[in-house]
Amino acid sequence: MLQGYQSWVFENKPVIIGSSAVGGPFEAQGNYAADFDILHDDLWLGEDSFEKAEKKMLEQACEKAIKKAGLKKEDIQFFLSGDLINQIIASSFTARTLGIPYLGIYGACSSAMEGLALAAMIVDSGFARYALAGTSSHNAASEKQYRYPTEYGAQKPPTAQWTVTGAGAVVLGREGDGPRVTSATIGRVVDMGISDPFNMGAAMAPAAVDTIEAHMRDFNVDLMQYDLVITGDLGKIGRSITKDLLKKHGIDIPEDRYIDCGATMYKESQPLIPLIAGASGCACVATVVYGHFLNRMRKGELKRILVIATGALLSPMSYQQKETIPCIAHAVSIEI
Amino acid sequence: MLQGYQSWVFENKPVIIGSSAVGGPFEAQGNYAADFDILHDDLWLGEDSFEKAEKKMLEQACEKAIKKAGLKKEDIQFFLSGDLINQIIASSFTARTLGIPYLGIYGACSSAMEGLALAAMIVDSGFARYALAGTSSHNAASEKQYRYPTEYGAQKPPTAQWTVTGAGAVVLGREGDGPRVTSATIGRVVDMGISDPFNMGAAMAPAAVDTIEAHMRDFNVDLMQYDLVITGDLGKIGRSITKDLLKKHGIDIPEDRYIDCGATMYKESQPLIPLIAGASGCACVATVVYGHFLNRMRKGELKRILVIATGALLSPMSYQQKETIPCIAHAVSIEI
Repeated sequence: MLQGYQSWVFENKPVIIGSSAVGGPFEAQGNYAADFDILHDDLWLGEDSFEKAEKKMLEQACEKAIKKAGLKKEDIQFFLSGDLINQIIASSFTARTLGIPYLGIYGACSSAMEGLALAAMIVDSGFARYALAGTSSHNAASEKQYRYPTEYGAQKPPTAQWTVTGAGAVVLGREGDGPRVTSATIGRVVDMGISDPFNMGAAMAPAAVDTIEAHMRDFNVDLMQYDLVITGDLGKIGRSITKDLLKKHGIDIPEDRYIDCGATMYKESQPLIPLIAGASGCACVATVVYGHFLNRMRKGELKRILVIATGALLSPMSYQQKETIPCIAHAVSIEI
Repeated sequence: MLQGYQSWVFENKPVIIGSSAVGGPFEAQGNYAADFDILHDDLWLGEDSFEKAEKKMLEQACEKAIKKAGLKKEDIQFFLSGDLINQIIASSFTARTLGIPYLGIYGACSSAMEGLALAAMIVDSGFARYALAGTSSHNAASEKQYRYPTEYGAQKPPTAQWTVTGAGAVVLGREGDGPRVTSATIGRVVDMGISDPFNMGAAMAPAAVDTIEAHMRDFNVDLMQYDLVITGDLGKIGRSITKDLLKKHGIDIPEDRYIDCGATMYKESQPLIPLIAGASGCACVATVVYGHFLNRMRKGELKRILVIATGALLSPMSYQQKETIPCIAHAVSIEI
């Protein structure tokens, strides 16, 4: 039910009965490699386009999550998914493969938490027995679409972020064992006038702060009730701006209680990483949370987490038409 | 709650307390002109790009629907919207203008009913007091993105459809007077192997039939319980294929009980219209249903309608990569 102005409480606490993370070669060298279910050493996955490779990863993530939930795809009523490719074709073509009734969503890199929040609502209120939520991104597909084909060798400024090649998925059910989705806060669009698509972290940080504040206001809680606050893909610069903005708004969070998936995805010893701001892409928060953090919850290392996935809602065309970057963030709390 | 495999019953029957339709110059000459709230004689709406013109129409549709509901935008908790432009920028930039917590969706031309179904679920299950659902399309923005810029003067085959320039929006509330949303059936992706983006009606017809059959199966009803069955934008060819397929599956529907918005949007006396298959675009079903048909329901001319919005989930890139066109259809029933 509605809580405050823009938040939801899931009274039946839908259970994440299956989750999965699929990654590419660069992710296989990163900090969270051990928590991926499938890692590919070929960026093409044997396909003849990066877009088809992305679709294949999303299919694998969905199939893996369903299998880990002990279900068959026929048991799932609804599939919610979105991605970064124009017209979210990775999601729609995966929906064709799965044959599950499908709701396409789009929130750029916030899509993972948008899908999780909606899937939780659908299950919580009895509109599905089981729902599947997924998302994906592919570095080369994104570079080609949003910036330059990788083959051009265009240089990146230090504020740039590296799109994660991967896919993540979760299966939610009304009953079972596992981490439970307890609440969500749906974000408003925040646009502070930044127009540089190579500085997404700075553009998205105010949206993260707006949603965190809304969450605290709607639930009348502080962040210390969470073992960990996790943002999606702000990167090193965006994370630092977020911390500063939170502090300015009187919200202090200890250094070790706040992790950004984009800032920690890769190792500083990996090529390029010390020179840029970190990772991004729909698959960034999805693989790290649905892989690493859910695993840690299952092991008992974490009891309550708040995940805030941010999205930069620009298109190359809106940027070319001199528009600034509208950003959004959706927060979901998970408990065990 | 869940009904059958892929349908929802809205037990509290959310009320459409405000609805609106905005159109462009070609729509102003069409069959439904009298039911538009705002009609523009300038395809640019005074903006410097077609994309910005589309955004302006969507903003106007949302503001009009909120006003007709007797509300202010601060009263609305969630805004659900999608459109055809890459990364649904018309919707996301409208969300920035409105400042309402935002859930971006994508289902191509099925987006109108996807948004209405999700908004109805949110209101029905107490996750919002009021929700706003909108969608838009712009002929010149779509032509340029999916086919050729209009200025090229490329010829159209007789199976082609004309993207509607317009936007439609509805405000749903738990109480009030007006047509009520009673049920929805969420479609699966259906792909019969058609790859010609100039023949969307034929590609989408099997998806419409699949969802109609699912609706009948889940609710154990026949189509005669509806005063009118309305498909979104199949056009003349798609409508005829749908009728044939329904008949083949043993479902007979009288000629005067089944209307396709795309086939009836424009007058045969308008330029080009006799030579092509009709209208399409996210705004096709949205403006005709949220304008004309809701008005007829309010006048008592119609009591129960079933609206099936179809979407072709291709992108220009998937087409260039020789992929066929995955299609989907979502059905929503409205009663008064």
